[in-house]
Amino acid sequence: MKILLIGASGTIGSAIKKELSTRQEIISAGFSEAEILVDITDKQSIENMYKSVGKIDAVIMATGKTPFKPLKEMTSEDYLAGLNHKLMGQVNVVLEGLNHLNTGGSFTLTSGILNKDPIAQGSSAAMVNSALEGFVKSIAIEMPHEIRINIVSPTVVTESMDKYADYFRGFKSVSAEDVALAYSKSVEGKQTGKIYDV
Amino acid sequence: MKILLIGASGTIGSAIKKELSTRQEIISAGFSEAEILVDITDKQSIENMYKSVGKIDAVIMATGKTPFKPLKEMTSEDYLAGLNHKLMGQVNVVLEGLNHLNTGGSFTLTSGILNKDPIAQGSSAAMVNSALEGFVKSIAIEMPHEIRINIVSPTVVTESMDKYADYFRGFKSVSAEDVALAYSKSVEGKQTGKIYDV
Repeated sequence: MKILLIGASGTIGSAIKKELSTRQEIISAGFSEAEILVDITDKQSIENMYKSVGKIDAVIMATGKTPFKPLKEMTSEDYLAGLNHKLMGQVNVVLEGLNHLNTGGSFTLTSGILNKDPIAQGSSAAMVNSALEGFVKSIAIEMPHEIRINIVSPTVVTESMDKYADYFRGFKSVSAEDVALAYSKSVEGKQTGKIYDV
Repeated sequence: MKILLIGASGTIGSAIKKELSTRQEIISAGFSEAEILVDITDKQSIENMYKSVGKIDAVIMATGKTPFKPLKEMTSEDYLAGLNHKLMGQVNVVLEGLNHLNTGGSFTLTSGILNKDPIAQGSSAAMVNSALEGFVKSIAIEMPHEIRINIVSPTVVTESMDKYADYFRGFKSVSAEDVALAYSKSVEGKQTGKIYDV
């Protein structure tokens, strides 16, 4: 299988690459430090990425940023920033990718736990994660060419706890290696329209 | 209680007004046919609305549009249109409203069933409904002045079945009167961070 992995250099992206690369062909993409550079907020950049890789069997997105601020500091523009990056970035990779996937191919997106288990300062992430999950559940029933789509919702990963522990007190972290299994299930299995909570 | 009802002339809005107006003071707002005209996509219009009503105890939003199109016709711009109207419209009413609600006041937003039970052509609605629900669940824990926030997720209402039956085959519709009860529970009860599926 030829798999395009966007966000390949991140904590989760690296673990996905490790999990899948022994048996699949992985093409690494990302905003920096990747074979193929892509800015998911730029539709032209997404199109260029797809042109350079040709037909593929799967796209994995382990990417997307949202602002973290207390509600009293959050503005309309902050929410829009999260929507434009993590939500519409992944959505545009899907819309553009529909013409570049082989029959039976798959998209795997990434949300996160904060819409189900909220924390202070996480309201943009909660909004965006939910939006992505609703989008995935819905378009799964309208996909052409037997293309599948799923989304992985990880809790905080152990490898990031040194940076994020203060935000996630009381959360049980999970290893990036365990999170990577959900991407394998999505890409190498046959399910569609699923939200994998890890 | 002094309640600002946005979308008062709609099918659900009218039922909410009927349910609550016997015992509460309702101020009707909407894009047209209302005491107070407001365009929820325009922040200045939202600010003007709040200035004209003074301090209030509750805001109910029964408003918001999303495009309905098959996935193969959906563009990035279509998804943005839904985000800008139904999602950010309601979000901006909340952000601006935080300074206009009395202590212990409440916001009640409206999503819809399509993120939980998807239909063809409903992917923008699914995205937006989910985004609203994640937003509400998250900011409920950060609200100042004991302000509460909930969201009502109605299935298709019986009164709209003449227009929408073809989209919602197999769905059991619910009367606008029954949907209105959920808004009463949100405004007149004490819960917060809840999604009321009706």
